[in-house]
Amino acid sequence: MQADWLYFEDFTPGREFPLGPRTVSAEEIIEFAKEFDPQPMHLSQEAGKASILGGLSASGWHTAALQMRMVVDSYIGHSSCQGAPGVDFMDWKKPVLAGDTLNGRGIVTEARILRSRPGLGLVRMRTELDNQRGETVCIAEQVIMFRMREPQQEATP
Amino acid sequence: MQADWLYFEDFTPGREFPLGPRTVSAEEIIEFAKEFDPQPMHLSQEAGKASILGGLSASGWHTAALQMRMVVDSYIGHSSCQGAPGVDFMDWKKPVLAGDTLNGRGIVTEARILRSRPGLGLVRMRTELDNQRGETVCIAEQVIMFRMREPQQEATP
Repeated sequence: MQADWLYFEDFTPGREFPLGPRTVSAEEIIEFAKEFDPQPMHLSQEAGKASILGGLSASGWHTAALQMRMVVDSYIGHSSCQGAPGVDFMDWKKPVLAGDTLNGRGIVTEARILRSRPGLGLVRMRTELDNQRGETVCIAEQVIMFRMREPQQEATP
Repeated sequence: MQADWLYFEDFTPGREFPLGPRTVSAEEIIEFAKEFDPQPMHLSQEAGKASILGGLSASGWHTAALQMRMVVDSYIGHSSCQGAPGVDFMDWKKPVLAGDTLNGRGIVTEARILRSRPGLGLVRMRTELDNQRGETVCIAEQVIMFRMREPQQEATP
């Protein structure tokens, strides 16, 4: 747990932030699915086993939400984050099965000052999540806005 | 509400499926955020107003999950859906504010038989959600797998 507040300047390309661990229970998979993605393979062990996923598995959107929570706990929650305009892509590489433990990393791949809005910068983050067998289950990339610690004069329009 | 079961063959390019309406309450925005995205602008009206979002606003991942529920209710829930490998992109165009009512459409933009797995087809869907002011709040595209009603012989490897 870092106590320091993070600003745009702290997101230097190549820097990594650890994510997790987070174990995903059958109960929470079913609870999320009942509300947001009530497909059989997310609602029961039996239907999950009968599906191409091979067991009770989390909705991809549940994995996405869990990823966000890990990201908030790792760096967003003590940062100058101003939101994100979307997601560039998210790949669900393997099913997240009941009982799996997720671990991963957020990697800064690009950072640039937003000239149209002084004091703001854009950071491209790549997020990778693995399960306890070392298999990558989810990869995503998105751009996140952060306020700068020391807004530069030349960023003023 | 359509009673007919939908198969790959029913997802013809250009076909549209209506999504919503779905009103989003302050309570559910805060509940989702507490669990998955505890950033101030998703947790209170005051912090939302002070943010660049202009009010208590749903996490983008909450909008994504609500979109999935509307998609399940509209067509996935009575279809031969076999899951999706990910999301090609998702753009959060405008904040989803407490009290907003979402409406939208799922549009088939492409459909092709998966030669490597007989009996399966891939359908590219574009999902658009608007608020009650007619503003588009979210656009996403992803590929979804569906079983075919009548698997073609030539799809066998």
